Amino acid sequence: MQKTDEKMHDAADMQPKPVKDSVVVTRDIVHPSDVNAHGIVFGGYMMSLLDKAACIAAFTHAGKKVTTVAMDGIRFFKPAKVGTILTIRASVNRVFNSSMEIGLKVMGLDQLSSEGEQLICRAYMTFVAVDAEGHALAVAPVVPETPDEIRRYNEALVRREARIALSKSLTAR
Amino acid sequence: MQKTDEKMHDAADMQPKPVKDSVVVTRDIVHPSDVNAHGIVFGGYMMSLLDKAACIAAFTHAGKKVTTVAMDGIRFFKPAKVGTILTIRASVNRVFNSSMEIGLKVMGLDQLSSEGEQLICRAYMTFVAVDAEGHALAVAPVVPETPDEIRRYNEALVRREARIALSKSLTAR
Amino acid sequence: MQKTDEKMHDAADMQPKPVKDSVVVTRDIVHPSDVNAHGIVFGGYMMSLLDKAACIAAFTHAGKKVTTVAMDGIRFFKPAKVGTILTIRASVNRVFNSSMEIGLKVMGLDQLSSEGEQLICRAYMTFVAVDAEGHALAVAPVVPETPDEIRRYNEALVRREARIALSKSLTAR
Amino acid sequence: MQKTDEKMHDAADMQPKPVKDSVVVTRDIVHPSDVNAHGIVFGGYMMSLLDKAACIAAFTHAGKKVTTVAMDGIRFFKPAKVGTILTIRASVNRVFNSSMEIGLKVMGLDQLSSEGEQLICRAYMTFVAVDAEGHALAVAPVVPETPDEIRRYNEALVRREARIALSKSLTAR
Amino acid sequence: MQKTDEKMHDAADMQPKPVKDSVVVTRDIVHPSDVNAHGIVFGGYMMSLLDKAACIAAFTHAGKKVTTVAMDGIRFFKPAKVGTILTIRASVNRVFNSSMEIGLKVMGLDQLSSEGEQLICRAYMTFVAVDAEGHALAVAPVVPETPDEIRRYNEALVRREARIALSKSLTAR
Amino acid sequence: MQKTDEKMHDAADMQPKPVKDSVVVTRDIVHPSDVNAHGIVFGGYMMSLLDKAACIAAFTHAGKKVTTVAMDGIRFFKPAKVGTILTIRASVNRVFNSSMEIGLKVMGLDQLSSEGEQLICRAYMTFVAVDAEGHALAVAPVVPETPDEIRRYNEALVRREARIALSKSLTAR
Repeated sequence: MQKTDEKMHDAADMQPKPVKDSVVVTRDIVHPSDVNAHGIVFGGYMMSLLDKAACIAAFTHAGKKVTTVAMDGIRFFKPAKVGTILTIRASVNRVFNSSMEIGLKVMGLDQLSSEGEQLICRAYMTFVAVDAEGHALAVAPVVPETPDEIRRYNEALVRREARIALSKSLTAR
Repeated sequence: MQKTDEKMHDAADMQPKPVKDSVVVTRDIVHPSDVNAHGIVFGGYMMSLLDKAACIAAFTHAGKKVTTVAMDGIRFFKPAKVGTILTIRASVNRVFNSSMEIGLKVMGLDQLSSEGEQLICRAYMTFVAVDAEGHALAVAPVVPETPDEIRRYNEALVRREARIALSKSLTAR
Repeated sequence: MQKTDEKMHDAADMQPKPVKDSVVVTRDIVHPSDVNAHGIVFGGYMMSLLDKAACIAAFTHAGKKVTTVAMDGIRFFKPAKVGTILTIRASVNRVFNSSMEIGLKVMGLDQLSSEGEQLICRAYMTFVAVDAEGHALAVAPVVPETPDEIRRYNEALVRREARIALSKSLTAR
Repeated sequence: MQKTDEKMHDAADMQPKPVKDSVVVTRDIVHPSDVNAHGIVFGGYMMSLLDKAACIAAFTHAGKKVTTVAMDGIRFFKPAKVGTILTIRASVNRVFNSSMEIGLKVMGLDQLSSEGEQLICRAYMTFVAVDAEGHALAVAPVVPETPDEIRRYNEALVRREARIALSKSLTAR
Repeated sequence: MQKTDEKMHDAADMQPKPVKDSVVVTRDIVHPSDVNAHGIVFGGYMMSLLDKAACIAAFTHAGKKVTTVAMDGIRFFKPAKVGTILTIRASVNRVFNSSMEIGLKVMGLDQLSSEGEQLICRAYMTFVAVDAEGHALAVAPVVPETPDEIRRYNEALVRREARIALSKSLTAR
Repeated sequence: MQKTDEKMHDAADMQPKPVKDSVVVTRDIVHPSDVNAHGIVFGGYMMSLLDKAACIAAFTHAGKKVTTVAMDGIRFFKPAKVGTILTIRASVNRVFNSSMEIGLKVMGLDQLSSEGEQLICRAYMTFVAVDAEGHALAVAPVVPETPDEIRRYNEALVRREARIALSKSLTAR
């Protein structure tokens, strides 16, 4: 009975969905407990924010339990100090069968400065949808609609191919 | 006066140093506070462990304040549950002027299982040495000695070139 | 010089601003480290989420350092378990000179259930804008535009008057 | 069998009990990890202390599992800095069938100042006793004995009536 | 001027004070974030509770900044599970010039059991009063009044002599 | 079947093992979230590091679930500030049937100073191996090989005898 429900659920989950339906925006303020010995946001803390936001985006799109399998291209552009207001944006760039590339961007606004929001960090995470035993499940395609979404959709394939090519060239050595 | 001291310090710091002098091995046990909603190590917590271990390795090699600028190729191979004993190994794979590639490997031993240590996670982090104002400083070269160290030294260049090529191909689009 | 800058900044800050310009939506996933002994979100943890979201909304509206002075009408409607995806919404309901009422609503989506989003919690927080010495500063009025914003704007006055009346009746006893 | 035990337990639990039997006093020192971006105790952290203290008082009085349903009248009077020694006092002000009003007061002693203890925060929390399925259970009446306890007992009714009146006036609008 | 104030303060601080004036009792509920991989209170978490309680007792007695120099005789008698209500009691057992022995006892009440409070842990901590540069300062004697306080006062000397004797016998080897 | 496996496992576990097979070295960097109100490592945080390192050493030697029963002789020699790189070393000094003395040493390197590694803390912890019900299990003897290991092996007995003598002299009073 539950099996049937699950399958019907899966069927609905496999309909292509627009990117905008699973965009996640979350916010945080940097507290003293979140910074490293130099007084700037600890890399590990930033990763916690990224992982949570990406996980919500992936689950929202897939409608199934998801798990992190990879993170790539994480770049720290500017240090964020105590008091900085962070805005973390996560969206599903593209689906490859059971895996999803989630793109992440973190902007920071220093409450004490007048320079406006600054780019703090960028990252790409790969999630897969899994069943209770951890086996990969198919995920519905994502439909990019805006020019930015279409660019990210195309770039996701470039990144994926670069990852595969790098992996092969390292193994071949 | 302090300036002079700093420069003399810098001179000593620029001598090539063997990889083994800055290898960092650290350990942890997964507690309930470290896992996500599925009961396995939270990606953000793993990143905290990686960031701390890599930072110690980078500082030990450079002898100067260092800061995280990038993370790449993070792969989660097996979920680690509560009670798993983690062993995190970080070493300086190669130096590129002021930036260092740190390679990281996490092994996990499930206290309740007899299957022995399992590969949990792999990652590459890039650190730069900086002065008090955050300007990049030159870092001493690292000297690989064992076959594994030499392989990682060579692979670091392959990864770097792939990163630069990917970046160019995305910009050119 | 800096004084002048501050005053000009203040002048701009005193223009009435629409509610929608300072709405804050933030997200979280309940982890095992966030629950109490009964396995449901710890009240103190929920308050941390509320305080951060409200603080960002108050700062975004006021454009000045803000500090929490009161919380009222916090109601917990449904317990949130590990794995629940929380959506916290904060907006400036009304400004009373230097104080702002921020309204907060928390919705929760249980990843394992099909019942959809549920109302978890509601709260009202009062923030004041302060200068470096902690003295209260005037805050720009907020302009409600939608029917919901207008309702909340009117209710904020009802709540404020009820608070003042209660305070008087307790003192008079 | 367990049912009978539970009922006998319940019977004993329904005897009126003096306020003093469930007073809870707890202490804390503010650490850097407990403060916000302005260096004063984070509201969310204060709420954690309040929630834990109130929960112990409610459980001690009711002798049954209790859960937070509301918080009201939280006022922050003075910011507490790193190093401040906090004294949190919680007591059952009055019982209304299955719900209890817990009154809370936080005093702070700045280790570096000679001004003595200062009032930091006041709050009222409502707890209900619940069975394993979360259904409300009756709670024994509380017997106020000192003039302060009697005042708080009477004020709890005033606050409750004000809450109900406010709720009605908002609904009627 | 401040110097004079400090000295006058010091003079007042050197009056013998009864033990009861600096007794600290604090409370906590064990949450899932406080337990180890076996589901019982993590030793490190218990130490955090002990260190904070002892530090408040030592500061309250000495009236000066204090710092932990030693911990001895920590015994874990019974594991405390999630939901256990902890009562931590700390008091100054005896003063030896600038050092104070603080005795600590932790009782635990399992909310789900009917066995009543159980002894969880005992410990002895040594604090010294220090000036801003970290130099030891004299501390007022403590006056034991009850039979238990007198017993602890006498035992503190026995423990101190045993520590000194052990240290000598290890050095002499 | 599992029983037999367990017994065979136990048999292998009872072979004497050299100290070096279970030495644990772990590392940490002091972050602002780890310090107390005076800006130096919080005693409770240090204990968390000690407890985790000792637990891994005890489990690695015993090959069975272990639990902390005592901590003694903890000495804090030098305060560690934010940014200090800590090296925690834990090893099994000696086995007494089912209990193990674990010796711990913490060294700290201040990134901003040129004074090199300093001794921060020393401690001795006692662990016992337990079965699922918490009953003590026999542990394999440990074989000290280096002069330092032999010294620690002998001193462990001196410390144990001093603890027993102290306990007797306090009880006899």
